Amino acid sequence: MNETTFALKGTICFSESPTKLSVTENGYLVCENGVSAGVFTELPEKYQGIPCRDTNGCLIIPGLTDLHLHAPQYCFRATGMDLELLDWLNTITFPQESRYADLEYAKAAYSIFAEDMKKSATTRASIFATLHVAGTELLMDLMEETGLKTLIGKVNMDRNGPPTLQEESAGASARDTVTWLEETAGRYQNVKPILTPRFTPSCTDELMTKLAEIQQKYHLPVQSHLSENFGEIAWVKELCPNTRFYGEAYDQFGMFGGPDCPTIMAHCVHCPDEEIALMKERGVYVAHCSQSNTNLSSGIAPVRRYLDEGLHVGLGSDIAGGTTVSLLRAMADSVQTSKLRWRLVDDSQKPLSLEEVFYMATQGGGSFFGKVGSFDAGYEFDAVILDDANLPHPQPLTPKERLERLVYLSDDRNITGKYVSGNKIF
Amino acid sequence: MNETTFALKGTICFSESPTKLSVTENGYLVCENGVSAGVFTELPEKYQGIPCRDTNGCLIIPGLTDLHLHAPQYCFRATGMDLELLDWLNTITFPQESRYADLEYAKAAYSIFAEDMKKSATTRASIFATLHVAGTELLMDLMEETGLKTLIGKVNMDRNGPPTLQEESAGASARDTVTWLEETAGRYQNVKPILTPRFTPSCTDELMTKLAEIQQKYHLPVQSHLSENFGEIAWVKELCPNTRFYGEAYDQFGMFGGPDCPTIMAHCVHCPDEEIALMKERGVYVAHCSQSNTNLSSGIAPVRRYLDEGLHVGLGSDIAGGTTVSLLRAMADSVQTSKLRWRLVDDSQKPLSLEEVFYMATQGGGSFFGKVGSFDAGYEFDAVILDDANLPHPQPLTPKERLERLVYLSDDRNITGKYVSGNKIF
Repeated sequence: MNETTFALKGTICFSESPTKLSVTENGYLVCENGVSAGVFTELPEKYQGIPCRDTNGCLIIPGLTDLHLHAPQYCFRATGMDLELLDWLNTITFPQESRYADLEYAKAAYSIFAEDMKKSATTRASIFATLHVAGTELLMDLMEETGLKTLIGKVNMDRNGPPTLQEESAGASARDTVTWLEETAGRYQNVKPILTPRFTPSCTDELMTKLAEIQQKYHLPVQSHLSENFGEIAWVKELCPNTRFYGEAYDQFGMFGGPDCPTIMAHCVHCPDEEIALMKERGVYVAHCSQSNTNLSSGIAPVRRYLDEGLHVGLGSDIAGGTTVSLLRAMADSVQTSKLRWRLVDDSQKPLSLEEVFYMATQGGGSFFGKVGSFDAGYEFDAVILDDANLPHPQPLTPKERLERLVYLSDDRNITGKYVSGNKIF
Repeated sequence: MNETTFALKGTICFSESPTKLSVTENGYLVCENGVSAGVFTELPEKYQGIPCRDTNGCLIIPGLTDLHLHAPQYCFRATGMDLELLDWLNTITFPQESRYADLEYAKAAYSIFAEDMKKSATTRASIFATLHVAGTELLMDLMEETGLKTLIGKVNMDRNGPPTLQEESAGASARDTVTWLEETAGRYQNVKPILTPRFTPSCTDELMTKLAEIQQKYHLPVQSHLSENFGEIAWVKELCPNTRFYGEAYDQFGMFGGPDCPTIMAHCVHCPDEEIALMKERGVYVAHCSQSNTNLSSGIAPVRRYLDEGLHVGLGSDIAGGTTVSLLRAMADSVQTSKLRWRLVDDSQKPLSLEEVFYMATQGGGSFFGKVGSFDAGYEFDAVILDDANLPHPQPLTPKERLERLVYLSDDRNITGKYVSGNKIF
């Protein structure tokens, strides 16, 4: 057995199903060559003698997957929080992202981001960089060092940006994309590229055509934004009069899911029925970004419906529409907004349960990365140790209550261990 | 000049008006005998030589006022978060509050609460205890030691509780209340009693009549709950067929504001027009508890309307409907839910701004305690030092941006100093 074969001992929680938590107190979680060998109440004989990290009763949960966030926006999170999406993009986000042409600035900003991602409970993430090739490669270098498994995309945008944040032409955008892909090919263990047309208002049809070719040639997954905010949706309708709904603006170029084009669409707050049906058909992943949808006054996505219809749903922090990379907080936010949706919009759609948001943050989003997000045997060994000793209580608590408290109350101090594919991050 | 005369140096922020922030970088905030002497860009000659605590550019803001929270609920915050108000009270809250008959349990639980309140940015609070006299006095003892200025109420409830959490009769409840008032009279510097009928469903008319007599005799302020949740409101209508709206159930006994009965009503999520008019007429304080109203699926209070109509509005953490005593977080929650209300309920009611929630958390609620919540000369010197050094950033930030980040991102590590009426807490 090699060095990535070991056990963790503690209170082990993972999703048995989208609505059921598996809990093993004083259990052993075994990692064999980077893959989970399962959870045991006693260490099986074949594993006697492997190294064992005893967490003293801490919770051990699968690593969390962040399906949507913008690394360059991390440094200005939680400022200028009084605007809707399009005004926020033009007034704050685009000028700020322009700064990443300066590699020194990019290094200062991305280093802060990488450090905080490392300390978080996140083990996998799908990340937007900016349109800058050098800055994107720098972000990839920094994220590689964290040990997290991430998808990172150089952003494409050839229209409707400010002069400081727009590519010269569709051709230039496509050429830069190929340069980026060729320069980084084979460079990383942990980081892979993901094709990233910003959103329809930022990408001409000509660019989308070229990106589709690149997608096919390099077999890339795709990430973008969908049906987030009324202003944005109305704009897409104007820009794409030939489409029946926003998703078709991606689908007409073959970049909206399907077996050869795994796709994450962030937000999906206001999807019409046909769009939902197409997402389901194509296996498009919904990145539910509850806090961002609140902060940018977009609304509350109908996640209950997506779950009922069997769509793939994971959680996204959506830095800097959202203010924190904590996916534990994202779970709490998702429960909370689902309650307000139930009360204010549609009381036939039950609020989300703790079990459901936990599933979305683990296996729901993790499955975009393969066998990720569970401790069942055969899953990649992504695990996080949560220590709740700084949250004292006079009464006994069940493991589920301890998990719920961490979802609502934890910060980086509670995250005391992390493994990705069996590699110890800390 | 005595020992409570000193200066703090830093970036000083307070509300010039409900919509305007006063910001003084590298300023001096002077405390003279426990009262603010104002903010100065240079230390005036008459204060040369007084002790000065240089915060190295930290933000200095007025102490925050928590207008509504339940101390006995602190230990079970962030658990069982999948119920509406009445089910949550019966299933979780009432059984948990029953435990405070046991003074040892009460001491363990209240000590955790008092410790966390001390570390928070809160300098003033209006707190529910339980119906137990001894437990309530213990809480008062513990809160006295923190140095915070608090109002604490022994809870009255003589109907609709479980056998373990209900007073024997209206007479017994009233007698216990008098015992509590007499036993604690003159005992504290920092803690005062507040009359606390739990809410109409918990209090018979006979009890309310007796409490009104006590209120007048002892000149007590009053705190209770109002129009929080549809289930509760319907129940009150059943219980009080003679009233036109919930507020009348208090008003008919003379406990709904007015010059001789300062009153805090928590929640006010679903107040009809007549109720709002009466609150305005009587100067009733609204304790806006945004997170709690979300967690218990109650809805979103029309705070914009209350501000426009000139009602007194402060913020409440409403432990354990809310999960945290952080009023900085309560500010963020209030902005966020106001955005969802604008999007989902009524787009004629603009979302709340950072300035407005900051005002509510300082002077808005603070004024219930007198001249509290401002740094204008003559206000009690309640101040909090906020250190944001652990939130690095590559770009320059304005003081307002720094404040906004602390509202969204801070935890107890960021609160590095606190003064109440000029007394240094830490």
